Amino acid sequence: MMSRSQGETADREFPLAELLSPDAYPLAGRSAGGQKTLIELKGASLGDGGFTLIAGPCAVESYEQYSETAHLIIKHGLKLMRGGAFKPRTSPYSFDGLRQEGLDIIARVKKETSVLSVTELMSTEDIGAVVPVADIVQVGSRNMQNFPLLRAVGGIGKPVLLKRGFGNTLRELLMAAEYIMKAGNPQVILCERGIRTFDSSQRNTLDVMAVPILQSTTHLPVILDPSHSVGTPRFIPAAIRAALAVGADGVIVEIHPHPEEALSDGAQSLSPDEFSAMMNDIGALARALDRRLS
Amino acid sequence: MMSRSQGETADREFPLAELLSPDAYPLAGRSAGGQKTLIELKGASLGDGGFTLIAGPCAVESYEQYSETAHLIIKHGLKLMRGGAFKPRTSPYSFDGLRQEGLDIIARVKKETSVLSVTELMSTEDIGAVVPVADIVQVGSRNMQNFPLLRAVGGIGKPVLLKRGFGNTLRELLMAAEYIMKAGNPQVILCERGIRTFDSSQRNTLDVMAVPILQSTTHLPVILDPSHSVGTPRFIPAAIRAALAVGADGVIVEIHPHPEEALSDGAQSLSPDEFSAMMNDIGALARALDRRLS
Amino acid sequence: MMSRSQGETADREFPLAELLSPDAYPLAGRSAGGQKTLIELKGASLGDGGFTLIAGPCAVESYEQYSETAHLIIKHGLKLMRGGAFKPRTSPYSFDGLRQEGLDIIARVKKETSVLSVTELMSTEDIGAVVPVADIVQVGSRNMQNFPLLRAVGGIGKPVLLKRGFGNTLRELLMAAEYIMKAGNPQVILCERGIRTFDSSQRNTLDVMAVPILQSTTHLPVILDPSHSVGTPRFIPAAIRAALAVGADGVIVEIHPHPEEALSDGAQSLSPDEFSAMMNDIGALARALDRRLS
Amino acid sequence: MMSRSQGETADREFPLAELLSPDAYPLAGRSAGGQKTLIELKGASLGDGGFTLIAGPCAVESYEQYSETAHLIIKHGLKLMRGGAFKPRTSPYSFDGLRQEGLDIIARVKKETSVLSVTELMSTEDIGAVVPVADIVQVGSRNMQNFPLLRAVGGIGKPVLLKRGFGNTLRELLMAAEYIMKAGNPQVILCERGIRTFDSSQRNTLDVMAVPILQSTTHLPVILDPSHSVGTPRFIPAAIRAALAVGADGVIVEIHPHPEEALSDGAQSLSPDEFSAMMNDIGALARALDRRLS
Repeated sequence: MMSRSQGETADREFPLAELLSPDAYPLAGRSAGGQKTLIELKGASLGDGGFTLIAGPCAVESYEQYSETAHLIIKHGLKLMRGGAFKPRTSPYSFDGLRQEGLDIIARVKKETSVLSVTELMSTEDIGAVVPVADIVQVGSRNMQNFPLLRAVGGIGKPVLLKRGFGNTLRELLMAAEYIMKAGNPQVILCERGIRTFDSSQRNTLDVMAVPILQSTTHLPVILDPSHSVGTPRFIPAAIRAALAVGADGVIVEIHPHPEEALSDGAQSLSPDEFSAMMNDIGALARALDRRLS
Repeated sequence: MMSRSQGETADREFPLAELLSPDAYPLAGRSAGGQKTLIELKGASLGDGGFTLIAGPCAVESYEQYSETAHLIIKHGLKLMRGGAFKPRTSPYSFDGLRQEGLDIIARVKKETSVLSVTELMSTEDIGAVVPVADIVQVGSRNMQNFPLLRAVGGIGKPVLLKRGFGNTLRELLMAAEYIMKAGNPQVILCERGIRTFDSSQRNTLDVMAVPILQSTTHLPVILDPSHSVGTPRFIPAAIRAALAVGADGVIVEIHPHPEEALSDGAQSLSPDEFSAMMNDIGALARALDRRLS
Repeated sequence: MMSRSQGETADREFPLAELLSPDAYPLAGRSAGGQKTLIELKGASLGDGGFTLIAGPCAVESYEQYSETAHLIIKHGLKLMRGGAFKPRTSPYSFDGLRQEGLDIIARVKKETSVLSVTELMSTEDIGAVVPVADIVQVGSRNMQNFPLLRAVGGIGKPVLLKRGFGNTLRELLMAAEYIMKAGNPQVILCERGIRTFDSSQRNTLDVMAVPILQSTTHLPVILDPSHSVGTPRFIPAAIRAALAVGADGVIVEIHPHPEEALSDGAQSLSPDEFSAMMNDIGALARALDRRLS
Repeated sequence: MMSRSQGETADREFPLAELLSPDAYPLAGRSAGGQKTLIELKGASLGDGGFTLIAGPCAVESYEQYSETAHLIIKHGLKLMRGGAFKPRTSPYSFDGLRQEGLDIIARVKKETSVLSVTELMSTEDIGAVVPVADIVQVGSRNMQNFPLLRAVGGIGKPVLLKRGFGNTLRELLMAAEYIMKAGNPQVILCERGIRTFDSSQRNTLDVMAVPILQSTTHLPVILDPSHSVGTPRFIPAAIRAALAVGADGVIVEIHPHPEEALSDGAQSLSPDEFSAMMNDIGALARALDRRLS
């Protein structure tokens, strides 16, 4: 019998050991026996062992659209609502958000209902406008390595939802969190949303295993975005079941009261009926796993 | 409100519609309302709604190693045992299997125990030696587009476990199954085992969502291989939970009685203790999902 | 003989036709018979049929380092000098530039020599500091889809060197140029600098063919960055020869008077001797191709 | 001034040092000061410092098509002609070659003209039929890790053209060559033909830099296949210029007397006029670089 060193395992080196090193991330790294970071909001939380759903449209399009979606979310017992007033778009000719008008709609609907807002900040110049209406400030995939923006959200005193870039490694994601934390903000939520690969059967290949790998390395909550990865409503419930099964702290999912009229991401948004069916589906699995939905 | 056509969704085109076309795969394609393919063996099955675990070492290394593993598998109520006598290796200087001696060990252990054998066929020239001892014949990742081999296993009259190439699309995987079926063998099991991406936090990025996408397109059973993708025992239980959650028909996982002595893939094989812990972990989730383990 | 439609070509769809559509890029798109964009500076140009070399250190590290490099560049007949005062770094604990002190060094060396400065702008907030000392303003790979920054450099009245993101398609690069042009700045230089693939024999896989594909679609100058792609001095001359051969308008290359002391990118910077050897090597090919070096 | 160890270079580790290790490839590895491998045939050669063009159709389709192409090749002073009688196809319903009839056509045209044949072997079972008519035996991309086939061509006594798999690393390519050489055949030609990436502006992303990286590691000749990578005639001349500029030993390119009637790969084959234009274009560059075309 030969010794193990004579065996050959991998076709390629993979740096898992280094990635998981306790010393690599002074602030985001998980210390042995340490506590997980808990994000607490008025009536919602992330990282407490429950499974938190953030739902809503890609973009705020009108008061009617946003308000209708808010009531849908409340009806299903959720509190956290996504919806952007500033939208990054590949083309300068695409609809890129209602900007201040969108922020005003978010503020009005928050007053009228009990929803909390998760909305994107694209530029340090918009901090004064965006942060007051946001309960969680999102840094998008394309800005994951926008280092001035990362430093800036280090000073806002509100939780930051940091999405993994579609071309970025887990180490880079953790280092981006480290930027925010080093600048003074310990409330960071990590979000895997699909990566670019040669395969085009999904819009972006959902890296489900990023969740347990990240959780073994960091004390920060980790969620999945099935909408921007899988890219079609048909397979979104399965992606959310996977998120539950691997122990994600939650998901962020796109829903729209009328997907066929959406100004962006309509093709991947769940309709109200699809949303209801998904909530039922997930509810059963969450109970089986003893995970509270919120 | 603008019409949907003014919205822009995807950064890249993705051909889901074409991939899922009912006409693209005359034999492997799922017909509306059609039955799933059921693989039935003496005391084991795949595709009947249960969750089938195939476990065993990467390679048959000795009678003692293979027999000890067989007893471990039986102890946990499993029947299907993997283990290769012919091993594809990147380097011609690596251990590449015991060949005929390995097949003899498989045959002996099958007689002594009730295990069924899943073993790899690498060449049409070995059909006469390999097929008689195999209960399921494996076509490996590097041979997924070895078309003469695909045609040849179309004539063996035994189930074929077809692994997705690490650089291949789902369409190509389905077309490879089509080759086997067109040559006369309807018993094909598809296996996702990780794809190559820029990310190296896994040995190969596990494409969990391939399972529901494939299942919506084909009536063939679909399983996951967490060992060659995730590449480290620490995250294999999470990968198997994901497989269960998205509805995979099973998994194929590497275990070794003494991983530190393995001649190949030791670093990714579960030890007996890790295997037991995983079986407990999975058992609870399977019961919650009402999926029978076998 | 069957008709061509019975043949099957591609394993995957590739959207070249759409990418090259004359209508897809109203401002950056190449019109039939149209002129190429010419970037003209005091004593340097890009896009006039010559082959323009931009050389210099990754970062401005000290007056001595920057000044010494400037004299090296002048000695070889070049004018355009790279060197960042603001450096994007994966880790918040890495050296990230001398900032204002670095800009002051650039300004001083420009006065003392005839070099022109290509330097990176990372944030709209630094426009007032960076733009006055820059002759060409660089937007880095990680900011290629930082849309507020793209819009901002649309108003600076100086040429912009736009680097392709390591995870971005050519369509996205062209659309990023479109953002800058739509905001009023027609002087955009596109730069391919390597993309992320499964292969790790280069730091990033240099996509040499992006040059002719882009040039067939846009009238903007296109250059290559061999340093951030190939990642090692040994193969940089070959990459520059490839750039010349496919018709690139130039290259941007990292050199350092003392690579072993560099604060960033030392491992991929050419030493003075390597730089001289490369210039000789390239000179011969340029003459053969009747391309003027500058 | 900080020491170099304080600098940070790479976003990802890349194993160039290990790849280039002189000891990693006992047979294929380049020894210091060692000779390059020279492939010599009746009237053609590879690896002697010249630039060797292999041209021809994807598949042998008829005597007329193959003979017409042979005369085209001879007219341009070339000797080596590609053309497959056995074609690997993704779908079992696609045209996959004329098989024995195709081999008979190759043999007849060889007798009638002076062309030499480069043709693909897909299975060990066809060695007896294929090898006698081949001057160079091709192992295709999908068979690069078909280890029994690699071992078999180690015994044929004729040069082997080994194409890189579209999902394979350079280390794996070199190890595949090592298989052939270890089995007794030192005459191996390596061929880069594009790899799969997230980018779809080429059929497969041409990894031009693989040429100098491979050549620094191995004494074997290295050629490029622009047809299967770039995937459209429009950019093939630029790819061949790049091959010349980086020092490739040659290229293999698809041409067809009537591309619109091709049974496979018509969309990427050069027409006779495009072929003539390319030969002129390349001839000028080859003379400038003092490389003899053949």
